Amino acid sequence: MNALIECVPNFSEGRRKEVVEQIVDVAHRTAGVQLLDYSSDEDHNRTVVTMAGSPDGVEAAAFEMIRLASELIDLNQHHGEHPRLGATDVVPFIPLRNATMADCVTLAQRLGERVGRELGIPVYLYEKAASRPDRVNLADIRRGEYEGLKERIAHDESKVPDYGPREIGAAGATVIGARPFLIAYNVYLKNATVAEAKKVAKAVRHSGGGLAYVKGMGIEVEGMPQVSMNLTDFTKTPIHRVQELIRSEAARYGATIHFAELIGMIPQQALVDVARWYLQLDRMEESQILENRLNDLAAE
Amino acid sequence: MNALIECVPNFSEGRRKEVVEQIVDVAHRTAGVQLLDYSSDEDHNRTVVTMAGSPDGVEAAAFEMIRLASELIDLNQHHGEHPRLGATDVVPFIPLRNATMADCVTLAQRLGERVGRELGIPVYLYEKAASRPDRVNLADIRRGEYEGLKERIAHDESKVPDYGPREIGAAGATVIGARPFLIAYNVYLKNATVAEAKKVAKAVRHSGGGLAYVKGMGIEVEGMPQVSMNLTDFTKTPIHRVQELIRSEAARYGATIHFAELIGMIPQQALVDVARWYLQLDRMEESQILENRLNDLAAE
Repeated sequence: MNALIECVPNFSEGRRKEVVEQIVDVAHRTAGVQLLDYSSDEDHNRTVVTMAGSPDGVEAAAFEMIRLASELIDLNQHHGEHPRLGATDVVPFIPLRNATMADCVTLAQRLGERVGRELGIPVYLYEKAASRPDRVNLADIRRGEYEGLKERIAHDESKVPDYGPREIGAAGATVIGARPFLIAYNVYLKNATVAEAKKVAKAVRHSGGGLAYVKGMGIEVEGMPQVSMNLTDFTKTPIHRVQELIRSEAARYGATIHFAELIGMIPQQALVDVARWYLQLDRMEESQILENRLNDLAAE
Repeated sequence: MNALIECVPNFSEGRRKEVVEQIVDVAHRTAGVQLLDYSSDEDHNRTVVTMAGSPDGVEAAAFEMIRLASELIDLNQHHGEHPRLGATDVVPFIPLRNATMADCVTLAQRLGERVGRELGIPVYLYEKAASRPDRVNLADIRRGEYEGLKERIAHDESKVPDYGPREIGAAGATVIGARPFLIAYNVYLKNATVAEAKKVAKAVRHSGGGLAYVKGMGIEVEGMPQVSMNLTDFTKTPIHRVQELIRSEAARYGATIHFAELIGMIPQQALVDVARWYLQLDRMEESQILENRLNDLAAE
């Protein structure tokens, strides 16, 4: 099966529709790339584009979008609620199918080098592509935003970009990296209070001593107690482990799982992993899934 | 998403490779059709072809295969262990994606009419496409085989074909129909005897008063007790229901599920249904599966 990679670039423009459309249009006219979604937020003055395709395809589309954004967006004129460093603010690559995290790191480095050299934009690598521990978290890199970086980039050693010049223009700087697919997964509890949902969330999430790749909090939604989560790496912490730990922690309070919900998209693999675990299909191979065979054949 | 239908024609030739290859080659050269698998059995003197594609594609490929087989295979010269009526013995259509059973019944009728009219081959409709209750089961239609049908077709009212002439040539007759996807699913038990696996199988299968779309028996495989099953309609009796009933029946004997296995292919939908049930994802939509979006977009 062909390698498939997701790319979710964020642009500092959420108000001028014609600018957003020009950028989004790149995905339509780049071979091997499919636009999955895009959404603009006027208050944040920001647009998030979701596309998927071949490694070469998403790299080419991302470069062209960054180039276009650098011509169309002036950070000196940009105001919005969301923190940002550049016209193209952040570009993560996510392995979807037949691609590893290492492939996405390589892609981030290659794109970063080219953006620095050809467009003269400072580039910082983040998450799995980070070159230093203090650049793993996006929030750390973005602290001070465009205006702060403009003052400090030339003389502050902590701000030396991974690629591109130590000077910043109207396009700002761009953060490029690689990360796993993020699943937004919520579990509603029955016979529980919101306070109990908060305790369950704390027990399940990484920061509370719970599962490694789970962020979460207890909240009330539509009058029901909910454990609201981000699963940051389903290949390491699979959804069934989250589900069964929530079940066990909730039972402590005499509560049960009412139902669960997914917000946004989920890779097929995450659901197949769940089915395989509950059915104990230890010997199952991916090629036994009929649709995978069809994709294989179509890709030949 | 485009309609996707599986077609699994069975041919009465499993020894002459050049004949099999000519028939299989039809799938390669028919637009909109993909060959998934084919296997020949010399003792049965029979070949099973598995292909998938658009409704028009699989219909065209099936017709051309039936035409070719009628030229290349002479039932008067055919000997094999497997019961058979014709050069093309049986042609089931199976809905895979964005297609209903009714679509497959229509397809079976359309193909049957054309085979009867253009090729002069008697056609019997079976399973969901059957025109009479005594033609639902393939074994009932095939009783007496080619040789018996040859004697009776002209005067026995129970043998009047659904399409085509009341006379039979060297290509014999063909049974065409529609049926759900069949999943071969086996569950190995721990701390159980083979006798107990037989009891569990009897409790779970339809004929023993168990689940509607389960056939099964208890056997020993690699020294382990196994509940060996055919799930004949996973949309009506989903795999998780089978799994949990086996778990409960096995517990009666102090046994547990060791592991399970799939033989051959499974539609993605069957595994998604399992994940959805165990995770209680009541609100999930198919379009939330990322790969489905990609297929949609590719099909646009």
